[in-house]
Amino acid sequence: MNKSRLARVIAGMEQMGLEQIVVSAPESIFYLTGKWISPGERMLALYITRDGDAAFYANRLFALNGQIDAPLVEYDDTDDSAKLLASALRPGKIGIDKFWPSQFTIRLMDARSDVRPVLGSQCVDDARMCKDAEELRLMRESSAKNDKATAAAISALRAGMTEADAAAAYLAAAKAEGASGPSFEPLICFGPACAEPHHSTGAENTLRPGDSVIIDVGLAWQSYASDMTRSVFFGEASDEQKRVYDLVCAANAAGRAAVRPGVPLKEFDRAARKVIEDAGYGKYFIHRTGHGIGLQVHEPPDVSSVSETIARPGMVFSIEPGVYLPGRFGVRVEDLVTVTEDGGETLNALPRDFTIVK
Amino acid sequence: MNKSRLARVIAGMEQMGLEQIVVSAPESIFYLTGKWISPGERMLALYITRDGDAAFYANRLFALNGQIDAPLVEYDDTDDSAKLLASALRPGKIGIDKFWPSQFTIRLMDARSDVRPVLGSQCVDDARMCKDAEELRLMRESSAKNDKATAAAISALRAGMTEADAAAAYLAAAKAEGASGPSFEPLICFGPACAEPHHSTGAENTLRPGDSVIIDVGLAWQSYASDMTRSVFFGEASDEQKRVYDLVCAANAAGRAAVRPGVPLKEFDRAARKVIEDAGYGKYFIHRTGHGIGLQVHEPPDVSSVSETIARPGMVFSIEPGVYLPGRFGVRVEDLVTVTEDGGETLNALPRDFTIVK
Repeated sequence: MNKSRLARVIAGMEQMGLEQIVVSAPESIFYLTGKWISPGERMLALYITRDGDAAFYANRLFALNGQIDAPLVEYDDTDDSAKLLASALRPGKIGIDKFWPSQFTIRLMDARSDVRPVLGSQCVDDARMCKDAEELRLMRESSAKNDKATAAAISALRAGMTEADAAAAYLAAAKAEGASGPSFEPLICFGPACAEPHHSTGAENTLRPGDSVIIDVGLAWQSYASDMTRSVFFGEASDEQKRVYDLVCAANAAGRAAVRPGVPLKEFDRAARKVIEDAGYGKYFIHRTGHGIGLQVHEPPDVSSVSETIARPGMVFSIEPGVYLPGRFGVRVEDLVTVTEDGGETLNALPRDFTIVK
Repeated sequence: MNKSRLARVIAGMEQMGLEQIVVSAPESIFYLTGKWISPGERMLALYITRDGDAAFYANRLFALNGQIDAPLVEYDDTDDSAKLLASALRPGKIGIDKFWPSQFTIRLMDARSDVRPVLGSQCVDDARMCKDAEELRLMRESSAKNDKATAAAISALRAGMTEADAAAAYLAAAKAEGASGPSFEPLICFGPACAEPHHSTGAENTLRPGDSVIIDVGLAWQSYASDMTRSVFFGEASDEQKRVYDLVCAANAAGRAAVRPGVPLKEFDRAARKVIEDAGYGKYFIHRTGHGIGLQVHEPPDVSSVSETIARPGMVFSIEPGVYLPGRFGVRVEDLVTVTEDGGETLNALPRDFTIVK
């Protein structure tokens, strides 16, 4: 157990008035124990009480004996794992990891009517939200590698290639950088597909002159995620495409420039969104400005118009405004930013110049 | 909406006494709607009532308008999605998808004290468990492609290569077969690592003479998963290694031979396990015999010593006994089997002969 991180989690439990929590997200367990376990559909639970006791519930398959310096309760596939955990709980509220599959929460309730599940992961999220020095070092390295792999993917663009081909070029470059893999499936869109922010990168859509190209990619380096978007145009670009690109780029710059500690994150959303709204494209920027990132590619804090979370040094999040014109084209420019003692530091260094790839 | 599949789900709701359920697993939503959506941390919910009404709750980002033939309720990142869904619920029990992140279940409870979450995905799982003809066709194709890709990975084994290298050889071969990707990260172990059933395939462990090699791999073909394990030896094998291999292979054959409709699945576990127990290796077979598979690589039914589920035609599951000798070596042999009208059909055709790769 990482003692300083555990102490931060327990301080959060006190603030939330929680006597006991279940931590289950593999990333949170890694954060606290240094051990990464992917439990599949099996129950994995780190049970923590406010007085600092911790016990680890894991399937015997994961062979954790001697690998975790907390009491280990092992079970087999034929055991009722949730009932086993339920028997150890104190009566009253129990903070539940927001991502824990509902089946476990419901089975805890079935076994213990005197226990009441409440949202409980905020104390872990809060601790994880402000990266310590070691984490920041890895986040910078992850983004530097992502810069290089993205540049390679842009260089690989060719007429007639599919989005899947471009994704493969990115993945190969990320691997060459030593990444253990992508931090999420590469999201690469050509032409009108760029206007669907959650288009599936596929083998159907081929690259044609005049297409906008969105490359939204990230990699995992020493368990820490990167995430960046660059948008370029292929062969040629219309005046409108250039205008929209410059607009989104300005919004990205405004969002990043606004970053400083002590103010709510919604101000950074506002700074980016205002640039796009003032140009009359507000209704085409259909998502929040950004999301926290670290051991997970999407984690707190939220950078949206309703985010009251106060920026604190060590937070890392994306600033990723976009404009999506249905049936025509789309542009998004995304960078990761960390809050410093007196402002913000952008982790990505890949240029954002308006680019027509020939 | 696939009407015949929806009708099967509603029949299951009647059996379970459920008036309303939330379906959230992307695979279940694909099964019912033909649309695959990966919601990330966002709420995705197909709300179904026993009288056949269905409504789809999704973030506007997924741009589903016109793509789903059920009423669509869209929300933005700034909306309280769970509250929106809560407002539509009927009082009383609501069946919850076992994999739905607990945050949504807890937020539903917070918004509606008159609604009580219970485990609710069994009606969907039951429908999905018995594959229809179209699904069986795709499952057979998926396993045929997995046979070929696994053979390629075995052919690629070389002294000094890492487990990650062998995994890369498998992935390249799976891609050449047209797979959209692996159905799970290849689990390839060399030597003593074979005795850790959930060892992480990595770049540290290199292949040496006398090593056992476990290759546990699967691919996704038209959304349907395959999953097979072959074990071979590299360079040389001891008498004990051959004896254990033959034993596991016999257990695999016994498990597959036992498959027939109308009996509980625990009998197939028993058939495989008995072979290993009778040879005195029972304590080294530390997991269940198998798991269901389809749109997910692990899904119901469970093939374990406590599984009372009755085998029915169309079920597809793995039979994967293993023996793991800590610190020394391990062997697992896994095939997928589907229950037919009068027995079982093995989907994998890759030979199981004792093999020393030179």
